[in-house]
Amino acid sequence: MMRALVLLSGGQDSSTCLYWAMREYGAAQVCAIGFDYGQRHVEELNYARGICDGLGISFAVIALPAVTELTANALTRKDMVVDAATVGDAPPNTLVEGRNMLFLMYAAIYAKERGIRTLVTGVSQSDYSGYPDCRDVFIKSLNVTLNLSMDYEYTIETPLMWRDKAQVWALAQELGVLDIIRDKTLTCYNGIAGEGCGNCPACTLRQRGYEEWKRCTK
Amino acid sequence: MMRALVLLSGGQDSSTCLYWAMREYGAAQVCAIGFDYGQRHVEELNYARGICDGLGISFAVIALPAVTELTANALTRKDMVVDAATVGDAPPNTLVEGRNMLFLMYAAIYAKERGIRTLVTGVSQSDYSGYPDCRDVFIKSLNVTLNLSMDYEYTIETPLMWRDKAQVWALAQELGVLDIIRDKTLTCYNGIAGEGCGNCPACTLRQRGYEEWKRCTK
Repeated sequence: MMRALVLLSGGQDSSTCLYWAMREYGAAQVCAIGFDYGQRHVEELNYARGICDGLGISFAVIALPAVTELTANALTRKDMVVDAATVGDAPPNTLVEGRNMLFLMYAAIYAKERGIRTLVTGVSQSDYSGYPDCRDVFIKSLNVTLNLSMDYEYTIETPLMWRDKAQVWALAQELGVLDIIRDKTLTCYNGIAGEGCGNCPACTLRQRGYEEWKRCTK
Repeated sequence: MMRALVLLSGGQDSSTCLYWAMREYGAAQVCAIGFDYGQRHVEELNYARGICDGLGISFAVIALPAVTELTANALTRKDMVVDAATVGDAPPNTLVEGRNMLFLMYAAIYAKERGIRTLVTGVSQSDYSGYPDCRDVFIKSLNVTLNLSMDYEYTIETPLMWRDKAQVWALAQELGVLDIIRDKTLTCYNGIAGEGCGNCPACTLRQRGYEEWKRCTK
């Protein structure tokens, strides 16, 4: 019987969470799930599968075509430009409305069918970026709602909730997987692995965190 | 600008909710959404569309193929028999895990894109039937979670929450649509409109409620 299901996108955060879960629960107790929601950087799922295959960890991909249909955003629409600048209090146009809630909901359904109670997600309030569904209060509220929805005792684990990107790099080193996270994951909105395009908001955040961590460890 | 989005399956409860919403908000302020999740009685969506077309109300259908993929239940699997009897405290095998949460979540995403804040659903704790996601506590918890998820003030309205089936028939009469609800909606798990097959759990509940209401109004 598996114990924990990791939501894995193939990016830095969720890949670090996968290794964290392996340390917490043992590799044999961990499986992973990813989502194909029409993201332009769908290539990330191949990186997720590559990591899982190398570790002998099961990786399921769920197709969610309705997400693209329902919302207009730069992560799923090729006719929109990824824009780091926001107007006033508005979130960035890479926000996919309700994304984390949908992913955790589908993961919860998948987990219950397999008797798994622990869901692991890499969301971080420290890296908030204007996404309301990365906040701790949202995750706690969702945990209660999921448990009521399916009359089942889920625990949502968020090992990165209070870590900024530099601290996520530090965790990768602590777990002994710094090289893998740096070279074999894909965070870039433009679909370039490792160091990425260097220009999109995701690359900027990742790179800035890496440099900060390097400075601190000198 | 629309004011309310009704989750419409084409069955007795949600169709009654549509007419309730028209009275509450005015017909011009109401639109509807339905879900094709591989239900064997998918024919219900044609009844939903028929009602909406007759009223000039917009009706969107969202396809959710992943639901069938993720869970084993008698409403989506043709190789399972609808079974009214339950073992111990187990819910009936027509339970589609997480269904109401998924539907409300997609409806919420659809609503926010259109500036709509009110979601209307026909769930009823009085008709609980062992489905945890029909309980009032779940709906209230989900309302909070949705608002946090998308940083938006939704209100989920549940006009049938404390009505049993006889009281839902009474509401249909009060709204002046008893004939339409009785003849032009589809509640039956076996896909037969109006009085239905008469044997499945949904038909039994609907028929028993109708008879009770008729007795009370004599």
